[in-house]
Amino acid sequence: MKKLGIIGGLGPWATAYFYSRVVELTPALRDQDHIETIIYSVPQIPDRTAFLLGEPDAEDPRPALVDAGRMLAQNGAEVIAIPCITAHAFHQEMEKGIGLTVMHAIRELGKLCWDTGISKLGILATDGARLSRIYDDVLAGYGVTCIWPDKEGQKQVMDMIYGEVKSGKKISEEVFYPVAEGLFSQGAEAVVLGCTELSQAKAGMKLNDKYIDIIDVLASACVRECRNGTVNTVE
Amino acid sequence: MKKLGIIGGLGPWATAYFYSRVVELTPALRDQDHIETIIYSVPQIPDRTAFLLGEPDAEDPRPALVDAGRMLAQNGAEVIAIPCITAHAFHQEMEKGIGLTVMHAIRELGKLCWDTGISKLGILATDGARLSRIYDDVLAGYGVTCIWPDKEGQKQVMDMIYGEVKSGKKISEEVFYPVAEGLFSQGAEAVVLGCTELSQAKAGMKLNDKYIDIIDVLASACVRECRNGTVNTVE
Repeated sequence: MKKLGIIGGLGPWATAYFYSRVVELTPALRDQDHIETIIYSVPQIPDRTAFLLGEPDAEDPRPALVDAGRMLAQNGAEVIAIPCITAHAFHQEMEKGIGLTVMHAIRELGKLCWDTGISKLGILATDGARLSRIYDDVLAGYGVTCIWPDKEGQKQVMDMIYGEVKSGKKISEEVFYPVAEGLFSQGAEAVVLGCTELSQAKAGMKLNDKYIDIIDVLASACVRECRNGTVNTVE
Repeated sequence: MKKLGIIGGLGPWATAYFYSRVVELTPALRDQDHIETIIYSVPQIPDRTAFLLGEPDAEDPRPALVDAGRMLAQNGAEVIAIPCITAHAFHQEMEKGIGLTVMHAIRELGKLCWDTGISKLGILATDGARLSRIYDDVLAGYGVTCIWPDKEGQKQVMDMIYGEVKSGKKISEEVFYPVAEGLFSQGAEAVVLGCTELSQAKAGMKLNDKYIDIIDVLASACVRECRNGTVNTVE
């Protein structure tokens, strides 16, 4: 088994939930079957979306991301995961700076779409992820077209992430469902909860199997990578 | 704010849940308000109960516990927490070996009982925690008498922890409630979920306020310690 390193705190809730999914997706009968894991949760890393949008006072989060990854590498981590999709915009720089494989949630999502024949995917994610075109560019390589909410819908997605989840509130279903349904009506065959904070929706809302949780995609890939192939099924 | 270090993996599920409670109990409006945290999850640490019971092949978990704590200290942790109650039997050795304050969940529970006037407390915990007398000895200092399940009830508690939670199953309510109610009928004023694995019961079962979750007690103390006083209310 390889040792897993998790760059966390972006946000902290998503980090805790991501690790719980790694545990749940690991085939195990006792503690000792689980993956050795170091989680470095640094909520002080500057906001990724603010930087990607070029906001005037936005700090560059890249040095702090690389430093966190290096701490994990120095302490023996062999596989790095970062349960923050927006930060994947810096994936190449992180991998180079850390010197280890950094799992790529969106490439894993692309493989899943390829395997299941999804060619139009609705995306619920931050403005930073949208404007960096990380979903569009990576998924295009797997033959997948991304469908995004309209302007008002995108604003509501950002309000859910920043106004609700990051301040500890629950997502309101009256806002979530109309935005998601708008994507299906534009032809999406599935909708991805494409910001790790939105996975909180899944926990409380019993979404059907047309929704894909990016946290599960990444957690499942980490378990496979660290254990050479064996993963529990996502419920 | 002080940096929190968590010795995890004992078990892994409890670690993920403990960290989620630290996040939820932290008063925060944005990621950057949260506590910087390192979690070192080492599920390979030898079983604590087996060692405390003196089982023939049981390995000594103490060196691995101290090593995990030292890794956290070397990486800047200032406060150490271990969301495994059975391991508290080695609290003094861990604190000495690590050279930092290790939070003590049962002392925190004692303070809570003292403040709320509880003098008889029902305990659901492992055989290791029971036989090491850690609950009895620490809580006696706060004027609290511990009430334990009878022999059959204690066996059922162990089956829940090792047979269900540690292998990823749900606790069955038909087993849990009769054991807990047995403690109330012996005069317990409250019952503590006194093994971090049992906190899973609380998540699924909506227990009333006569139940105290040791994970919340420890998480709340960590937030207070790292943030100099401010903690959200336990729901």
